Amino acid sequence: MVNIIFTCGDINGIGPEVSLKSIRQVFNSEKYSIIFICPENIFEHYRSLLDFRIPINYCNIDNPVFLSGHLNLIGLGNAQFNPGMPTDISGKISLAAIELASKLALSKKTDGIVTAPISKISLEMAGINFPGHTEILADICNTNDYGMMFLSDNMKAALTTIHIPLKDIPANITENKLFKIINLVVNTLKTDIAMKKPKIAVLSLNPHGGENGRLGKEEEEIIAPVIKIFPSEIVEGPFVPDAFFGKGLHLKYDAVVGMYHDQVLIPFKMLNFDKGVNFTAGLPIVRTSPDHGTAFDISGKLQANPSSTIEAFKWNVIIAQNRKIKNAG
Amino acid sequence: MVNIIFTCGDINGIGPEVSLKSIRQVFNSEKYSIIFICPENIFEHYRSLLDFRIPINYCNIDNPVFLSGHLNLIGLGNAQFNPGMPTDISGKISLAAIELASKLALSKKTDGIVTAPISKISLEMAGINFPGHTEILADICNTNDYGMMFLSDNMKAALTTIHIPLKDIPANITENKLFKIINLVVNTLKTDIAMKKPKIAVLSLNPHGGENGRLGKEEEEIIAPVIKIFPSEIVEGPFVPDAFFGKGLHLKYDAVVGMYHDQVLIPFKMLNFDKGVNFTAGLPIVRTSPDHGTAFDISGKLQANPSSTIEAFKWNVIIAQNRKIKNAG
Repeated sequence: MVNIIFTCGDINGIGPEVSLKSIRQVFNSEKYSIIFICPENIFEHYRSLLDFRIPINYCNIDNPVFLSGHLNLIGLGNAQFNPGMPTDISGKISLAAIELASKLALSKKTDGIVTAPISKISLEMAGINFPGHTEILADICNTNDYGMMFLSDNMKAALTTIHIPLKDIPANITENKLFKIINLVVNTLKTDIAMKKPKIAVLSLNPHGGENGRLGKEEEEIIAPVIKIFPSEIVEGPFVPDAFFGKGLHLKYDAVVGMYHDQVLIPFKMLNFDKGVNFTAGLPIVRTSPDHGTAFDISGKLQANPSSTIEAFKWNVIIAQNRKIKNAG
Repeated sequence: MVNIIFTCGDINGIGPEVSLKSIRQVFNSEKYSIIFICPENIFEHYRSLLDFRIPINYCNIDNPVFLSGHLNLIGLGNAQFNPGMPTDISGKISLAAIELASKLALSKKTDGIVTAPISKISLEMAGINFPGHTEILADICNTNDYGMMFLSDNMKAALTTIHIPLKDIPANITENKLFKIINLVVNTLKTDIAMKKPKIAVLSLNPHGGENGRLGKEEEEIIAPVIKIFPSEIVEGPFVPDAFFGKGLHLKYDAVVGMYHDQVLIPFKMLNFDKGVNFTAGLPIVRTSPDHGTAFDISGKLQANPSSTIEAFKWNVIIAQNRKIKNAG
């Protein structure tokens, strides 16, 4: 039995809607208890619109007691509701929900958090200087040793560089950074995905894998030497990216470590559109999320697709259970 | 009725094998006549190994006359055969086959050329200073206005930059180069693929399409302005690459223009492994080829897969016929 929290995300985006749609679909009182952190009026609004019939346990915010067979709601009061618009209030509530969820997770009252999308613009309007969930959670957990992973049944992946211009990618691929991300992936697969002997493929940066230096030297100078630090039965590469995915090798490795955003997210989204999951590896908190944003343009219209949030919940349960087993053993 | 040439490529690679396997499979005497340019001993070697039973018309090299119902062989004498090894002789023959095929195509005796893979190493050993087919053909045709396209049933694509290190990509994306490649794709789809109103999608360079300049400025400064030169019903973009392919938009556009090699070839090969075709757009000669190399490691073992060469032949026939119809009309 695990306790999993859903946070509301930006209340003016599709977060509350995809969370409640997901909770309705995955609700199974015997395997886990589910907690939702959200302003009460927003919750009641979507509960009524979605004809959500699971019994509610209204929890005390300071000392919540979770009941099975219920959705455990931790209310954040009532909040001004402006569907489709980033506001300072929605920014403040985004952060409050994450902070409360983290506190409950760090104190072991809950086992994992599925975070709904938040808005950088709302955070800025509220004077909060974090670009997103990952940085907020790393700050709360006081760690530098974390990384974004992408999870799905057919492909798991991590990136050496993420949200930077293409021109800045080569300078940002260092031996130290690449070593840390490969190491994080190895440890995550062993601990969180419970793989005894994970096999990880590392991609090259340049086309044709650099063609022995003719099309780039990063493979020879940085990527291959870092790969050699790891046992060859665990980490292999560098692989030529188009041939790797063309031959379907991503199906033969437990995870792929790529060099930059689109190299990994083009194939990942082709394989998993609406089903991909983000996981912040390396944190003491099990945090997963859907791989889409606030979608302000369709907020409040009940058109949002909860598939990715449902997958985020499934992976959260898997990882939370694996950590429990490991800690118990 | 069209006349299509297959060239042998590097005789020590898999070229003769995939060509003969393809010819055997596509042979249809009513729709096209097929010509093969190859040293005679190499041809007889694979003909016997493959139990190739189509009747042969041995042509005079200086004044070939093509017969339907036959494979028309233009022999290049006998050549030293070293399967699996690049040699100066295989380099010289690679070039001789292309030159003869080009001469026949430019003099309108044939309608298209399917080129088997050649080796840069063999060319260098023979003292021939061309990196590949594309440059040899552009030189023979005396044109600068050409570009590589990738063809398949479910995706057609072109690249703004091709075989350069990732670090050099941004500096190589200029308004002039991007305009020329989009223009080439528009004209190719209209003329060679016979599309009245082609729709072309142009991708962004940076992750998230540059996020309004936060993750790169090439979209605002170069890509979007060039797209605006074209009618909006023909050319659209820039599209965020991972979302574009994740949503399957490549199936809704007639062609995709990407900024760099792996951005386009990762999705193209995922969709079309063993079936992708290279086409040199913009030449007076219709030249297509399989999307693999000489594969010296499996040469002579009869293990080579002809699928990509068969597709290269099919697209060659389509384009050659469209050009004939256009020239007749």
